[in-house]
Amino acid sequence: MKDQYRITAEQATKWGISLLTKCNLNKEDAGIVVNALVKSNLRGIDTHGIELIRHYARRFTTIRTRPIEIVQENETTCLIDAGDNYGILASTIAMNKAIEKAEKYGSGVASVRNSNHFGAAANYALLAAEKGMLGISTTNAGVRIPPWGGKDAFLGNNPVAIALPGREYPIILDMALSVVAFQKIVIHAREGWTLPEGWAYDSNGEPTTDAKAALKGMLTPLGGYKGAGLSVMMDLLCGAISKNGFADNVLSIEEYDKPRHVGHFFVAIKIANFLPLDVFKELIDSYSRKFHAVPRKDGIDHLYLPGEIEHEKYKDRLKNGFTLTQATMAHLNKVADEFGIEHLA
Amino acid sequence: MKDQYRITAEQATKWGISLLTKCNLNKEDAGIVVNALVKSNLRGIDTHGIELIRHYARRFTTIRTRPIEIVQENETTCLIDAGDNYGILASTIAMNKAIEKAEKYGSGVASVRNSNHFGAAANYALLAAEKGMLGISTTNAGVRIPPWGGKDAFLGNNPVAIALPGREYPIILDMALSVVAFQKIVIHAREGWTLPEGWAYDSNGEPTTDAKAALKGMLTPLGGYKGAGLSVMMDLLCGAISKNGFADNVLSIEEYDKPRHVGHFFVAIKIANFLPLDVFKELIDSYSRKFHAVPRKDGIDHLYLPGEIEHEKYKDRLKNGFTLTQATMAHLNKVADEFGIEHLA
Repeated sequence: MKDQYRITAEQATKWGISLLTKCNLNKEDAGIVVNALVKSNLRGIDTHGIELIRHYARRFTTIRTRPIEIVQENETTCLIDAGDNYGILASTIAMNKAIEKAEKYGSGVASVRNSNHFGAAANYALLAAEKGMLGISTTNAGVRIPPWGGKDAFLGNNPVAIALPGREYPIILDMALSVVAFQKIVIHAREGWTLPEGWAYDSNGEPTTDAKAALKGMLTPLGGYKGAGLSVMMDLLCGAISKNGFADNVLSIEEYDKPRHVGHFFVAIKIANFLPLDVFKELIDSYSRKFHAVPRKDGIDHLYLPGEIEHEKYKDRLKNGFTLTQATMAHLNKVADEFGIEHLA
Repeated sequence: MKDQYRITAEQATKWGISLLTKCNLNKEDAGIVVNALVKSNLRGIDTHGIELIRHYARRFTTIRTRPIEIVQENETTCLIDAGDNYGILASTIAMNKAIEKAEKYGSGVASVRNSNHFGAAANYALLAAEKGMLGISTTNAGVRIPPWGGKDAFLGNNPVAIALPGREYPIILDMALSVVAFQKIVIHAREGWTLPEGWAYDSNGEPTTDAKAALKGMLTPLGGYKGAGLSVMMDLLCGAISKNGFADNVLSIEEYDKPRHVGHFFVAIKIANFLPLDVFKELIDSYSRKFHAVPRKDGIDHLYLPGEIEHEKYKDRLKNGFTLTQATMAHLNKVADEFGIEHLA
């Protein structure tokens, strides 16, 4: 096998749809899920790209799902039961509902219960930004972080995305609430590398730079007690407002045969209700020019606005494709074999 | 002079109102401003307490203000021009507008331009929580943080507060986006103490533990590049949506004779549109019990939910009063002398 496999968005999309149509999805819904994953690859967020499809394929041929359902709805609010179905499908419906309400009333909010992994949080905030709105999306997730001063994991890394429209590209922040992703600990442990300080705790909640100890331990929250607090708030937004599960009720992505009780929360706010969208975009341009003109430290070629790197990667990868590692490809080939479809490459 | 002065909320409130009625406020508005400040003292956030009144007294007897005005309004959105007036007054009007709209339509949003320091962000998010709503409040602020990789300050520590109703006390996070407040650098420099690592940069954007170098330098953002990104987003929410100023257009609190161009952003979302408020509060209770039952590290007596410490302090200080330092009291006495009112203590 090669080290790296170059894939185009078109190849990945076609392959992904052929897989998911074997996993209880019609072609249209399979397209929505796969497009969201491939969009993450294009934006350079490979951890949330096509690789995730292996989890989805296993889960949705193992667990019983119900149709996604709107439970209740008011002028600007909407509660959706995902029925243990694809998180990306429920979340796309939810953010589109929020956008539709914001279009009419100025703001819209959607809460989702009984859901699953929703891919990258960015995708939903971006849906709003593309419609000239402020978009906020967040989800809870399996626990990996202790409360501040605690010894057991109780908090997820609960990612939050906030997006605003821009002229050339949206300004978008998408961040998990741990200092680093768990996957980085996995890689350091596998390669025998020492962890940088501040990434992880051992299983007693003590700081560690031993990747193997961290594997059995926990992640540190972004910004210490502040990030731990933010994780509590996002868990309650996603888990309590949806009357769903929170904290250790939210199961890990790999417990394929159990409902995960993931909750999400989405907000859309129409910018044109405050100022014309053109004027807003001019302000973003003006901010951007000032930001990029700030003097840089030695060795820094450019200061990046939130979402700028992802936009550059998107342009490049849309044209030139993206690469998947040998490990990822092996996972995907294995799933392809199981479901009797061709290999991706 | 004594080291510490014990003051009751009643004393501080009465004194503060007598001062602000000499600073272009009627008694009712003076009460709103002073109550917000004293509430911060009661909650243990003395940096945002009655001490701030000295800045307000100077500013609002120096600068020309205009009446606070609602510029435009839709079903769920509202844009307010604070007219360079008291930030606390404009923000109280703004959050109450958002709450009123959320009561009717499920969600409400208010943007404020041409404003000033608004005290603690917590106060406005709490207004929403007291009405059974999710409240979000944020402001931009004078710049003290460089962009990630930059050498000059371009970002404020732009505090964000998020509050949810609880049974006994609201769950509320209120955090600035720097690792520590600038005031801590000031104290370390004054006392000749070395700074902990990770607090500050020197004037070249290099990490420093020299408090005097940090005084002329900058603050580090919470969580590295993630916090720097969050600061950009909050600045755009507060500064661009309000068509106001952002980045270095936002002046420091001490430039008393110039409009500061501070912007704020408020969101209220009605929880009863998703589930009965009682049920929500039961979920918060259940979360709280599980959270507090997490095993603790040695030396940790209790794990605190966001807002729990502030609630405990509030109960204690309401009964027993709070203390102000000699330095704070000297500032307040000086202002009292200038405006010809009695000393606070």
